[in-house]
Amino acid sequence: MSEENRVPVSVIGLGMMGAALAGAYLRAGHRTTVWNRSANKADALVEQGASRADTIADAVAASDVLVACVVDYQTLHEILEPVKESLNGKVIVNLTSGVPEDARGAAQWAQSLGAKYLDGYIMTVPPAVGLPQTLLFYGGSKEVFDTYESTLKVLGGNSIFLSEDPGVAGLYDLSLLGILWSSLAGALHGFAMLASEGIPAAALTPFAESWITHVVLPSIKGAAQQVDAGQYATTISTVGLNAVGLAKMVEASKGQGLRPDVMIPIRDMLQERADSGHGDEALASLIEVIKKP
Amino acid sequence: MSEENRVPVSVIGLGMMGAALAGAYLRAGHRTTVWNRSANKADALVEQGASRADTIADAVAASDVLVACVVDYQTLHEILEPVKESLNGKVIVNLTSGVPEDARGAAQWAQSLGAKYLDGYIMTVPPAVGLPQTLLFYGGSKEVFDTYESTLKVLGGNSIFLSEDPGVAGLYDLSLLGILWSSLAGALHGFAMLASEGIPAAALTPFAESWITHVVLPSIKGAAQQVDAGQYATTISTVGLNAVGLAKMVEASKGQGLRPDVMIPIRDMLQERADSGHGDEALASLIEVIKKP
Repeated sequence: MSEENRVPVSVIGLGMMGAALAGAYLRAGHRTTVWNRSANKADALVEQGASRADTIADAVAASDVLVACVVDYQTLHEILEPVKESLNGKVIVNLTSGVPEDARGAAQWAQSLGAKYLDGYIMTVPPAVGLPQTLLFYGGSKEVFDTYESTLKVLGGNSIFLSEDPGVAGLYDLSLLGILWSSLAGALHGFAMLASEGIPAAALTPFAESWITHVVLPSIKGAAQQVDAGQYATTISTVGLNAVGLAKMVEASKGQGLRPDVMIPIRDMLQERADSGHGDEALASLIEVIKKP
Repeated sequence: MSEENRVPVSVIGLGMMGAALAGAYLRAGHRTTVWNRSANKADALVEQGASRADTIADAVAASDVLVACVVDYQTLHEILEPVKESLNGKVIVNLTSGVPEDARGAAQWAQSLGAKYLDGYIMTVPPAVGLPQTLLFYGGSKEVFDTYESTLKVLGGNSIFLSEDPGVAGLYDLSLLGILWSSLAGALHGFAMLASEGIPAAALTPFAESWITHVVLPSIKGAAQQVDAGQYATTISTVGLNAVGLAKMVEASKGQGLRPDVMIPIRDMLQERADSGHGDEALASLIEVIKKP
């Protein structure tokens, strides 16, 4: 695509991630307009060739494609509400993270104004924006995704359209983030266990790497199959045995002078599952407890 | 080693794991004596060539190396206490899982009887016992580990001696198990999020695999370095930002009709860290909260 044919974009919100998005468009040769509530955040981008929008109205007027990355949906709504008359025919690519209901509400609001809406999630950190392997999840208008696919892929080559339901991409986002948060919390708990005896985290790292690759990952894949089949038979590692293991983990953590907080709900939910007559099932059956509020 | 030179072993405890241990010794050509409180659990192994010990005294007398795998340390103590006079000069390889204080207590007790003690942890499921890549952690008597290394490696080629402190191997064991439990709980939480919209777990699996390999594992390795350095500077992903993300996760989970139990302590500990003035630090600094009971 020649530079003249590249779709002009306006980037709304220039936090760490928004600035990375604008930077990617500048590097890819898109005419890029930038706007932020605190205007000085645009300075570095303007030096790199971005056009500064003095008002949100200017930012909306400058491009048909508005890429938004602000702190939350409420903030985006507050920013766009005063210029809502000018959103007719615009494309809103909202890369603000939120819960599914936020995304569905934003999509309805945009549609009511004649705008097209795509809800996206950037599954990486700002420095990796724009790389070919960078993953983004999208939901909402498939038409927008198809029409602007090459423009969207400027932000990450691995851009995936998941569903016309704008709430779904956020669920994928949260599901992966949940795996990161829980895994990292578990690893930090382990590092704390070792630190309590003066052993550095580095002593565990090679074992943890092998363990995650050869035990954790296959366990998660196996659990996915069991969950989808609704079949939790096992001859190997049962809810009951692991409930005992987690009780030991909590006891040992306290014994080492540590807070067992991260392990307690896993212990309790496994025990609950065992107590309800499912102690012989596989660990994957824990999902049945999570599903029942 | 010729079959005659292989060290005879007595396996005490024939649950799923104990039976796998005895099976590995039989396959490797060791004279293998087996004992279990419920004697019928030995039947299949006797058919494969094991010698049945009718009493624990017979099991102890049959071999210099006693490999124990029972439900807990208390049970092992109850089993061996009546024959403690005969333990002088024996090698006890205790593959029962427990907390560090259990292992230290068992080592002291064994030493007081003139026995040598090795505390071990089998980092796999019973069907993988005896494979070259199978990982076992050992602590306690380095002399026993060195003397019987080839006998120990019958149970798993990747047998690692960690420390003369018999409590340490159990900490490594619990640390890795904690990563498995927390990662799997996080993944099941994600599967439940998707299931709440009728999306199968299989839809997330390929993304989860890539995510764990390219995001989670590097994050854990990076956190280990930060923990060991006690330096939590970041320009990327802060405690404060992730506390907001976890609050969204809890809210979204409730919105989907799910129990957010697994995510709540992570949210609360991150918030606690942020509230104490460390919101700009990296996620790894969560360990400072875990360390302070």
